[in-house]
Amino acid sequence: MKTINVGIVGYGVVGNGVAKIIEEKRELIKKKAKVDLNLKKVFTRNWNKEFAYPLKENQKANSAEELLEDKEIDIIVELAGGIDFPYQLINKALDSGKHIVTANKALLAEKGKEIFVKAEELNKRIGFEAAVAGGIPIIRALREGLVANDIKNIYGILNGTSNFILTKMYKEGQDFDEILKEAQELGYAEADPTLDIDGTDAAHKIAILASLSYGGFLDFSQVYIEGIQNINNIDIELGKELGYTLKLLAIAKSHNGEIEIRVHPTFLPSEHQLSKVDGVYNAVMVEGDSVGDTMFYGKGAGSLPTASAVVSDVVDIAKSISLGIGREIEITSMNWEHKELNLTKVQDFYTRYYIRFTVPDITGILAKIATVFSKYNISIAAVIQKEKVMEKYKKELKENTVPLVILTHTASENSIQNALKEINDMNITNGKNILIRVEDEE
Amino acid sequence: MKTINVGIVGYGVVGNGVAKIIEEKRELIKKKAKVDLNLKKVFTRNWNKEFAYPLKENQKANSAEELLEDKEIDIIVELAGGIDFPYQLINKALDSGKHIVTANKALLAEKGKEIFVKAEELNKRIGFEAAVAGGIPIIRALREGLVANDIKNIYGILNGTSNFILTKMYKEGQDFDEILKEAQELGYAEADPTLDIDGTDAAHKIAILASLSYGGFLDFSQVYIEGIQNINNIDIELGKELGYTLKLLAIAKSHNGEIEIRVHPTFLPSEHQLSKVDGVYNAVMVEGDSVGDTMFYGKGAGSLPTASAVVSDVVDIAKSISLGIGREIEITSMNWEHKELNLTKVQDFYTRYYIRFTVPDITGILAKIATVFSKYNISIAAVIQKEKVMEKYKKELKENTVPLVILTHTASENSIQNALKEINDMNITNGKNILIRVEDEE
Repeated sequence: MKTINVGIVGYGVVGNGVAKIIEEKRELIKKKAKVDLNLKKVFTRNWNKEFAYPLKENQKANSAEELLEDKEIDIIVELAGGIDFPYQLINKALDSGKHIVTANKALLAEKGKEIFVKAEELNKRIGFEAAVAGGIPIIRALREGLVANDIKNIYGILNGTSNFILTKMYKEGQDFDEILKEAQELGYAEADPTLDIDGTDAAHKIAILASLSYGGFLDFSQVYIEGIQNINNIDIELGKELGYTLKLLAIAKSHNGEIEIRVHPTFLPSEHQLSKVDGVYNAVMVEGDSVGDTMFYGKGAGSLPTASAVVSDVVDIAKSISLGIGREIEITSMNWEHKELNLTKVQDFYTRYYIRFTVPDITGILAKIATVFSKYNISIAAVIQKEKVMEKYKKELKENTVPLVILTHTASENSIQNALKEINDMNITNGKNILIRVEDEE
Repeated sequence: MKTINVGIVGYGVVGNGVAKIIEEKRELIKKKAKVDLNLKKVFTRNWNKEFAYPLKENQKANSAEELLEDKEIDIIVELAGGIDFPYQLINKALDSGKHIVTANKALLAEKGKEIFVKAEELNKRIGFEAAVAGGIPIIRALREGLVANDIKNIYGILNGTSNFILTKMYKEGQDFDEILKEAQELGYAEADPTLDIDGTDAAHKIAILASLSYGGFLDFSQVYIEGIQNINNIDIELGKELGYTLKLLAIAKSHNGEIEIRVHPTFLPSEHQLSKVDGVYNAVMVEGDSVGDTMFYGKGAGSLPTASAVVSDVVDIAKSISLGIGREIEITSMNWEHKELNLTKVQDFYTRYYIRFTVPDITGILAKIATVFSKYNISIAAVIQKEKVMEKYKKELKENTVPLVILTHTASENSIQNALKEINDMNITNGKNILIRVEDEE
C-alpha cells in the first residue's frame, strides 16, 4: 500500500483535530479504505504555544513554501482562515501539483470560481466537505447519493451560533445580548461573532451548496443576506402563537432557470423537521424530485466533527491518487453545468410574510392597513392584534402602542415593500415595521 | 462517453421507478457524472399488465437468462424480491461478469456473506444503497463521509409501516388494528404486513448497517428481534407521562470487541431527535467517535425514493466501469475487517427498562416488587402507580386491578428476567408483565 503524504497549513482548532485523526485513525483508514496516510508537514505562523495535539519536531514547517516544495506531499489541507492568503496558497499548491482539501467556506463562496477552474485545468481535486455543515457529509450526499435527482429546494440551518441563540430565545425567553455573551463563554461564538450572526457565514455555505447542486458559479455579492442581530423576543413569542419557530434559514431554490438564494430569519411551522434542530446543531433539508425530502443533521463545527469531514476528503483524494486517477473519479464535480447561475432578484422573491406594526391602540388602523394590502393584491392569512400592550415587552414598545401582526399568504417582495412604503407614508404606525419571512406551504 | 448498459430483473413498484429515472434523467446524469446509462433489458414474470412506466417492446425480456447472456449489459439491477431466486440470479450474474445493484435487504442480511465474498473474488461490485432506508444515502455516509470514525452506536427507525402505526398511536390514541387497516388502505403497509410489524425488516436493515460499520458478517439468526404487534395504547400513554416516545428502534452498538444488535419497541426521550421522526419516514442516527451524533432522515420506501438510491449505485458502478476500475475504487467495502462479528448475547444486554405490572389495588405490592429488584441489584428510577384503573384502558385490565409501572436505571437483561421470574412466582401480579426497553442516558 503506497503511503500518501499530507501537509496541513494552519494549525488551529480544526487543524489539531485533523492531525489527531490522521495519526490515530491511520490503521483504521488502512483497513477501511486501503490507503495509508502520513502527516508529513504542518505549517503555522507560531509554534511557540500549547497545542491540543502536539506534533513531532520533524513535522513542523517554518513556511508554507516548505510544504509546496516537498515533492512527496500529495495533498495540502488548507485551514489557514481568511481569504487572501489561502487563495494565494491554493493557487501555488495547484501549480505545484498538489490536490487540495479546504474547510474555507468564505474563500470558496467568494473566489471559488478561479480555484475550481484552475483545478479543472490541472486535473487536481478540491475537497470541501468540511466547508459546509462541519461533520455532516452533505457534499457527498449531493454529489453521489442524490445524483439522480434534480434538486428543487435546499433549506439549511448552517450557523450553529445563530441557532444556539434563537433556540435559547425560543425556549427560555432570554434576551439576544445575554445569550450571545453566554455563547461566547461556552466557546459557541467567536469573540467577534459578526459573520455568524449577520448571516454571512450561512450565506457562504448555501452559496457552495447551490453551486454544487445547480452546477454553476454565482456572484456572491448578489446573495440576499439578513442576520439575526435585530431579532426581538416579542416576535419569537408572537410567532409561537401562530405556530411558528424562528430559524436563521439559508435557502436555495430552483425555478424557471433562475436560482433563488437567500439567508434570513425565517418562521417555519413548529412541527417542521428543521424547527426541531436545536442549539449548535446544523441541518440541511434537501428536496430532490425523485427522493422527496431528505434531511442531514449533525455538528456543524468543532475540532473533531469538522476534522472528520476534512479527513474523509483526504481519504477520498488519497484513494484516487493511489488508483492513478484525477478529477474524473468525481461523481458531480463543481460547475458540472459549466455556467453562471442566474440569481433571482430580491424584488422577485415570492414567500409569505409576518409583519409586525406598532400602532396606537385605536380602532380603524387594521382596516387602513388591510386596504393597502388589498390594493397590492396581498392576501392576509392571519392577524394578531393585542388589546393591551404585553407587560414584558413594554420596553420595546412606546407608551400607548400595541403590536399588530399580519401574516400574509404568498406575495412578491416587491408588492410587500411597496405596500409597507405606502403604509409608512400614512403615518398610522410608528414606522418601525418588523418583517420576517415565513416558509410554509399553503 | 461510453454507454453503460443496464438490465433490471423484477419490474414492480421500484423497478418502474428505476426505469423512469434512468431514462428521464439520462441527460442530467451525463452532465453530472459523465456516464451514459442505457436501460437495455428488463425481465419480469408477467408482461401482460399495466405498468406505471411502460417500456419499449425491445426492452422486454422473457427470461432473466436473456439479460445474463447479453454481453453488452454491465450492470444487473436485482429487484425480484424473495431470497432464493435473487440469490441464484446474483450468483449467475457475477459469474457472467456483471456488477450488481440490489435493494434486497432480506437477501443481503441472511445470505450476504456468500454474495459479497464471491463478488470480491471476481472483483465485481455490489451496490446496496437502496436496501437500507430507501432514498437516504446512509450507506455512502458510512462508507465515505464517516470513514475516519470508529462507529460507536447506530440507532435506526428503519420500518415506515411500524413508525406510521406508532406515530398514530402516540398522537391520536387510535388502536393498533385500526391504524394498520388504515395503513394498508393508504398503501403504507403490505397486505401481509408480518415482516414489517414483527421487526424482521428493520432487523435485516440494521444487520446490513452493522456489517458495513464493523466490517464483518454476522449470523442473522442470532439477532434479537421483537416487533410492535403486542403494543398497547396504555403503555404509549404511560410512557408519555414519563417523558418518552415509543419507536421501533433498530440498534447496533460496539463494545469490548462485541457487537450488540437488537430490534425492539423502545422508549426514547421525547426530545430526542429520533422521537421527532413521524409517520412513514425513516431516520438513522450514527454516533462516530470523531463526528459525534449525525442523523440522516428521509423516505424509507416508495417507488422514486428507493429508485433514487438504486440509480445512485448504478451511476457509481458505471463510473468505475468507465474508468476501468473494479472494487478497489470503494472506500470501505463490506467485510473490511475480514471477520465474523461476535454478537452480544441477549442476557448480556445492558439497558434501562419500563415494566408494567398489573396488580390488585392493594398496598404492599410495590414494596415486595422493589425488594426483588433490590436483590438483583436493579435500581428503580421512577414509579407510576395509578390509584384508580384508567377508564379508557379498562378493557385491557382485569376488574379490580391497576397498572404499576417501574422505570429502572441501567440493568442487565439477565437480572431483569430473573427478577421478573421471581416476581411472577410470588403470584402478586396477574403474571402478564409488559417489558419495554428504554434508551436514555443517565
